[in-house]
Amino acid sequence: MYIGAFDIGGTKTIVALADEMGKIYEKKQFPTNTTNCFSHLDDCVRIFSEFLKKRDLTTDQINGVGVNLPGIVDRKKGILLKAVYAGWHEIPVKDYLQKKLQISKIVCENDVNACAEAELLFGLGKKYHNFAWMTVSTGVGGAVVCDGKLIRGAHGYAGEFGHLKVEYDNPANCPCGENGCLEAQGSGTAISRYIKEASDRKKFSTTEEVVSGVQCAELARNGEQTALEIYRKAGEYLGRGISYYVNILDPEAIIIGGGVAAAFDIVKSEIRNAIGRYTFSPMKDVIVTTTPLGYEAALMGAIAIVIAEESEDK
Amino acid sequence: MYIGAFDIGGTKTIVALADEMGKIYEKKQFPTNTTNCFSHLDDCVRIFSEFLKKRDLTTDQINGVGVNLPGIVDRKKGILLKAVYAGWHEIPVKDYLQKKLQISKIVCENDVNACAEAELLFGLGKKYHNFAWMTVSTGVGGAVVCDGKLIRGAHGYAGEFGHLKVEYDNPANCPCGENGCLEAQGSGTAISRYIKEASDRKKFSTTEEVVSGVQCAELARNGEQTALEIYRKAGEYLGRGISYYVNILDPEAIIIGGGVAAAFDIVKSEIRNAIGRYTFSPMKDVIVTTTPLGYEAALMGAIAIVIAEESEDK
Repeated sequence: MYIGAFDIGGTKTIVALADEMGKIYEKKQFPTNTTNCFSHLDDCVRIFSEFLKKRDLTTDQINGVGVNLPGIVDRKKGILLKAVYAGWHEIPVKDYLQKKLQISKIVCENDVNACAEAELLFGLGKKYHNFAWMTVSTGVGGAVVCDGKLIRGAHGYAGEFGHLKVEYDNPANCPCGENGCLEAQGSGTAISRYIKEASDRKKFSTTEEVVSGVQCAELARNGEQTALEIYRKAGEYLGRGISYYVNILDPEAIIIGGGVAAAFDIVKSEIRNAIGRYTFSPMKDVIVTTTPLGYEAALMGAIAIVIAEESEDK
Repeated sequence: MYIGAFDIGGTKTIVALADEMGKIYEKKQFPTNTTNCFSHLDDCVRIFSEFLKKRDLTTDQINGVGVNLPGIVDRKKGILLKAVYAGWHEIPVKDYLQKKLQISKIVCENDVNACAEAELLFGLGKKYHNFAWMTVSTGVGGAVVCDGKLIRGAHGYAGEFGHLKVEYDNPANCPCGENGCLEAQGSGTAISRYIKEASDRKKFSTTEEVVSGVQCAELARNGEQTALEIYRKAGEYLGRGISYYVNILDPEAIIIGGGVAAAFDIVKSEIRNAIGRYTFSPMKDVIVTTTPLGYEAALMGAIAIVIAEESEDK
């Protein structure tokens, strides 16, 4: 049997045809059309139908379709409640796709929760049953896994690591309206801000203008002091947020995905230093690592949520 | 059928005979003999046997005995791994009591986890399925409940709220060896330290010497500014720690027990202010309340862990 996977992000979407082992047979990436959610869903349906036609498959050979959505999702009802970046509200994704695809099992999930489900099924979840999944990119998001199960919280908001307060005395403003949040201090956006500040003040010991995180990471790898200091600062803040999680939930591992994972070699030692200072001693050895699923963690998540729901049904 | 409950704390012990509804028939409190754990267990057994004799009961009428222990417990093996205050290590409590009592079901648990089990069964757990249980007294301890289940973590350390870092820039030393921990900034011990500092510097606008938390709380209730400032500070730190929990786990409620709960009327508003500043906005309305189980939360917990294990067995 086959599984469909729609990984709809704030900027890009991937539609894929896969099987229950996570093997991907067809895959297509295209920009997310944020002007109209329904016409974007129509595009996904059209591409998926092309895959079925190409492989000579019918919809009754599809176990289900997993749909990642870039916002707050009512999983049971299959409704996208709110996607701030895309500007979508109250979209009945499940109902709409059930009709359009003529497939009954449509599983909708927040994209970060889906990453955690992918980790459980295809990644480090085989080894760890208690972990945090942390996406560090433009923002900071996350998911909580305890005893092998995703924890959603009372209203589905569990895993809001981006708004953990990590700086009280000299806090930066956060888009949430507060300040000192991990998202404002340790995200990719924060790193970009530190780079711009340092660049404006001519702090880098290089003739080239430093504008990107990739450039700054490369400088740090070559030992450039200002670049190192920027990643040191981000690592300290990430370590503070991680320590809160560890003291509360005693996980085996913290698994990091998202763009900043590419600079993990530079931030890792400072994250460990911070954990050493801020975590109750028997838990200081918690594993901090990047996801082995890489760039496709979310797409694998869209597959995983269908399989996870099947095993819950049984 | 009946249940035995041994609530062994660092300073006092309560032995009780109860039923599955939590009704207590016999109860005796006495100091914990920390010099010898086994002779203390013998005392508990002797008192419990007296209860049985008095009520004309035999051990086969006892479903099980719940034992709270003041430290780190291997629940499955029924071993007290470490109780720092009492100085006990690696005590095979379950084996020992099985032989002495001739009762097979002996359930051992850390005392704070037991409080959370009591809350689930006899208290606010009927209403809330996602909550933190926080003991704020000499130290700060806690337990994590998600989807109606106690979360223990990878090594049984989940709920170490006392070592959440809540002060980075002017941190006080914590007995754990680090500094700025919630236990060092917002516990009953921290409040006593603030009182002593203020008293030494003649800050209180009263002719009497202020030495106790009870005195200070009374002054605060009467509007004395230094006393209010002390509770304001403790409330701010407790609110910081609570906010970390809320952002990570999205609970319905935070339930507070322990000595400082008696001053909850004074700290509550500052806890709420801190939650307002440090919690992601959709979760700012989390309920913060004291336990309805009061002083006997832990004893009720010793009963609850037996019932919880029975329902797990089924």
